[in-house]
Amino acid sequence: MGPPPAQANGKQAGKNLVVPLSNGISVKKEESFSQWYQEVVTKCELVEYYTEISGFYILRPSSMYVWNTIRAWFQSRIEQMGVEETSFPMFLSSKSLEKEKEHVEGFAPELAWVTKAGDKDLEVPVAVRPTSEAVMYPYYAKWIRSHRDLPFRLNQWNSVVRWEAKQTTPFLRAREFMWQEGHTAHLTEQLAEKEVLEILELYAGVYEQLLAVPVVRGRKTENEKFAGGYWTSTCEGFIPSTGRGIQGATSHALGQNFSKMFDITVEDPNQKGEKIFVWQNSWGLSTRVIGVMVMIHSDNKGLVLPPRVSKFQVVIIPVGLTAKTTTEVRENLAKQIQDLAGSLKENGVRTEVDNREGYTPGFKFADWEMKGVPLRLEFGPKDAANSVVTYSRRDTGLKGTIPLAEVGSQVPVLLEKIQQDMYDKANEEFTSHRLTLTDWAEVVPALNNRNVVVIPFCGEPSCEERIKETTKSDEHRELGPDGKPQPSMGMKSLCIPFDQPSGLVQGETKCLNPECGSLAKSWVMFGRSY
Amino acid sequence: MGPPPAQANGKQAGKNLVVPLSNGISVKKEESFSQWYQEVVTKCELVEYYTEISGFYILRPSSMYVWNTIRAWFQSRIEQMGVEETSFPMFLSSKSLEKEKEHVEGFAPELAWVTKAGDKDLEVPVAVRPTSEAVMYPYYAKWIRSHRDLPFRLNQWNSVVRWEAKQTTPFLRAREFMWQEGHTAHLTEQLAEKEVLEILELYAGVYEQLLAVPVVRGRKTENEKFAGGYWTSTCEGFIPSTGRGIQGATSHALGQNFSKMFDITVEDPNQKGEKIFVWQNSWGLSTRVIGVMVMIHSDNKGLVLPPRVSKFQVVIIPVGLTAKTTTEVRENLAKQIQDLAGSLKENGVRTEVDNREGYTPGFKFADWEMKGVPLRLEFGPKDAANSVVTYSRRDTGLKGTIPLAEVGSQVPVLLEKIQQDMYDKANEEFTSHRLTLTDWAEVVPALNNRNVVVIPFCGEPSCEERIKETTKSDEHRELGPDGKPQPSMGMKSLCIPFDQPSGLVQGETKCLNPECGSLAKSWVMFGRSY
Repeated sequence: MGPPPAQANGKQAGKNLVVPLSNGISVKKEESFSQWYQEVVTKCELVEYYTEISGFYILRPSSMYVWNTIRAWFQSRIEQMGVEETSFPMFLSSKSLEKEKEHVEGFAPELAWVTKAGDKDLEVPVAVRPTSEAVMYPYYAKWIRSHRDLPFRLNQWNSVVRWEAKQTTPFLRAREFMWQEGHTAHLTEQLAEKEVLEILELYAGVYEQLLAVPVVRGRKTENEKFAGGYWTSTCEGFIPSTGRGIQGATSHALGQNFSKMFDITVEDPNQKGEKIFVWQNSWGLSTRVIGVMVMIHSDNKGLVLPPRVSKFQVVIIPVGLTAKTTTEVRENLAKQIQDLAGSLKENGVRTEVDNREGYTPGFKFADWEMKGVPLRLEFGPKDAANSVVTYSRRDTGLKGTIPLAEVGSQVPVLLEKIQQDMYDKANEEFTSHRLTLTDWAEVVPALNNRNVVVIPFCGEPSCEERIKETTKSDEHRELGPDGKPQPSMGMKSLCIPFDQPSGLVQGETKCLNPECGSLAKSWVMFGRSY
Repeated sequence: MGPPPAQANGKQAGKNLVVPLSNGISVKKEESFSQWYQEVVTKCELVEYYTEISGFYILRPSSMYVWNTIRAWFQSRIEQMGVEETSFPMFLSSKSLEKEKEHVEGFAPELAWVTKAGDKDLEVPVAVRPTSEAVMYPYYAKWIRSHRDLPFRLNQWNSVVRWEAKQTTPFLRAREFMWQEGHTAHLTEQLAEKEVLEILELYAGVYEQLLAVPVVRGRKTENEKFAGGYWTSTCEGFIPSTGRGIQGATSHALGQNFSKMFDITVEDPNQKGEKIFVWQNSWGLSTRVIGVMVMIHSDNKGLVLPPRVSKFQVVIIPVGLTAKTTTEVRENLAKQIQDLAGSLKENGVRTEVDNREGYTPGFKFADWEMKGVPLRLEFGPKDAANSVVTYSRRDTGLKGTIPLAEVGSQVPVLLEKIQQDMYDKANEEFTSHRLTLTDWAEVVPALNNRNVVVIPFCGEPSCEERIKETTKSDEHRELGPDGKPQPSMGMKSLCIPFDQPSGLVQGETKCLNPECGSLAKSWVMFGRSY
């Protein structure tokens, strides 16, 4: 979408104004979070609801930009590790599903079944992949013939379908979503485990380094681990406005469960004739990351994008032109702005100049604020006279000036500062709302005050189920998508943080659930969650 | 897949040899082309047949490398043009299909229908997209509100499903394939047409500049144009071994057909109150390109990759080591090979060193030849003594030496020469097998001699149908995938070449089909085809 064509020469600024097509965000983040979110993702043109089929969303160019930035970052790193790219079909046959029951049962209710091609019924219906373990592993059995083929690592970028019955939300829970799925095989448990954690660190890097989102790294409890897997590592985020935890991305140790089901073996290099079932991992990062970023950083003016993932990092807007401004001044200003943009681009800053005629600077300010561009530069005759440019930060609203001669060097530094400040702010929120508790009575009030909690926990699935029940609350803190207050959900375990608080004595400290009485195994982070 | 672990020190070369897992290509290209092709794509590890569901293929890392190279090349060029990226859902509802009948009828027999989610029947079945016009254009109507929004251009990289009843072939015809699909809207026919041809030129560039495949640019006849479109531009390739034409990629002018169906309008900037239906284009390039590349360049030893799309452009293989070779000589050689590889990498050459122990050089030669690496460098004590490296070209088998000191500068030049020579050879084949004919009696013999023909043609669909019938031949030239000879198909129109031969007089020259009698409108390229 190009800018509107330039107006006839000499037309006065301020006249013939174009009426803004979309108004700002009409709901406040602090008042109705879910409606606010809906407005932000649609009005800021991240997604469009696909009204033809519910639960599906169209990703528009600005979210694709974020996703492609993440993709390039992650892809280069896994290539370095030796992971190769592949593309498997999107369908799996009902036959291959039969092989791995435990895994499949987790996905069965959400499988989309193709039963017809044209007007003919298929002999055997096929399902759209909800994830590709069952699609890929029969071929791993064929391709992996020797320990020399290990580690065997493939990744694919695709979309998967999970026909959720639950309420869907753009990015967070959609019936189709884009992701990458890595599937690898290793000779030993230790080698596999090493990779699980390397990948988890990359996922945390996507959040922390690109999206300015702090996460807690940890391990899922038995209750929350991947269906059919061995253990699951995860990075968990936090949405301050609702006090809910949100799963960021997971990297699974599958152990030998799948290699036994699909007979993926190699001969033991140390013991001739003995066969070893390979140790497998799978790991995935989805477009959900974009939703987390939006929920944390954006505000009542719209999107706030971290500089590293913003298509435009800087927008330059000419200001201070009036009916009295001479053509000479206008032309000089235009020339200087061009130089300014050139100098920024030379310094690697993704820069846009908003030369649209017929719009007031005020309209342009609001428009680019809504779109989340991290830094606005204003430049008018007064700035020119003082040899400075005026800036305004999207994240804090902070304004200041930069000497013209230093724009090329100072702006990249300022952008990195914005990136860091956004992270620090979100991290401060997460840290101050992650309460380490040893008194059960404090748990529900803590949740109601928008915290997640870290408590001693026994690790038992049945105990976790009870906790989910007993922490439901009648207090209605949040409006649902229908605008009505919703009862608060119970808390579930988010992860067993790798970074454990002190104070838990093995064989002594009890699980905090008063109904339980078992010994606590570790500190576990619980919370209401998405 | 890493190399096998190094053997114990001092083990003699030639001992303890690993038996090659896959044998070479067992069928000759000139004897049974389709079986040869099947072996090449599978044994050279481009694809694996997805045996669970027929007509589907797994793309393995080496084909993904080619595809990603093409993707990056094309993506950077359309970004430059201002095309933005999007991602629409993979499903379309039966409702949106009703809107655009003509287009849909072309795809209806191949639609894969999802009728169930979990164990529940869907209220309204949804089809997997065969292409996304019907998915996207309702939103174009919403998003395009003013001529200021034009040109409006989106592209997506995805896979589409067409449940073909015909025989499927890896890359060429699969029930699911990857592609990009661009969908754009313009204010005028002229602006739209300009883009159609710009994109076609990029498609031709993918073939000619990356894949070393010559193509003929032209326009499709009415019979062969895109269902529901206005006119279709195409680049057409040629498979010398079978003498068949093959459609390379198409860029469609949709005219106003879809904008009228979906009501995509803007106000005429020159006439207030008048509405204009936008002029639309759609254009797509698929993984078919890889199949065309394989069919043209590969040979009885396996794959032959053009240097620009080969993951490894050079493989260095140590040679001339015997039981008598001293450790010192071995170590010196290893060091020199490392330097060699380093110098190549510094000069931007994608280089692999095959240090696998326990394999003879002969085995390694055959292995890398099968995988299609464009240039092999051999380096042994004799080469070291002469300060040269011996090379062998994959495309021609030509051998020679390069002074060690010049490897960094000469190899990139040699790789570009290989790229050019591969193109020239294929171009010479296409040119000499594209016969401009003015005598109908020569047509079928020409086809039987593995040519395509360029003939004066009236352009009528009914005449084209007759030509397809009357040019069928009993001569059995080719073995089918079942190994049995197949009757030769009739010819169909491939394109109306933009570059028209001379000699056709408008209002005088007749259509070459003797049954027709109408005047010829243009020279049209016909051929048996894929």
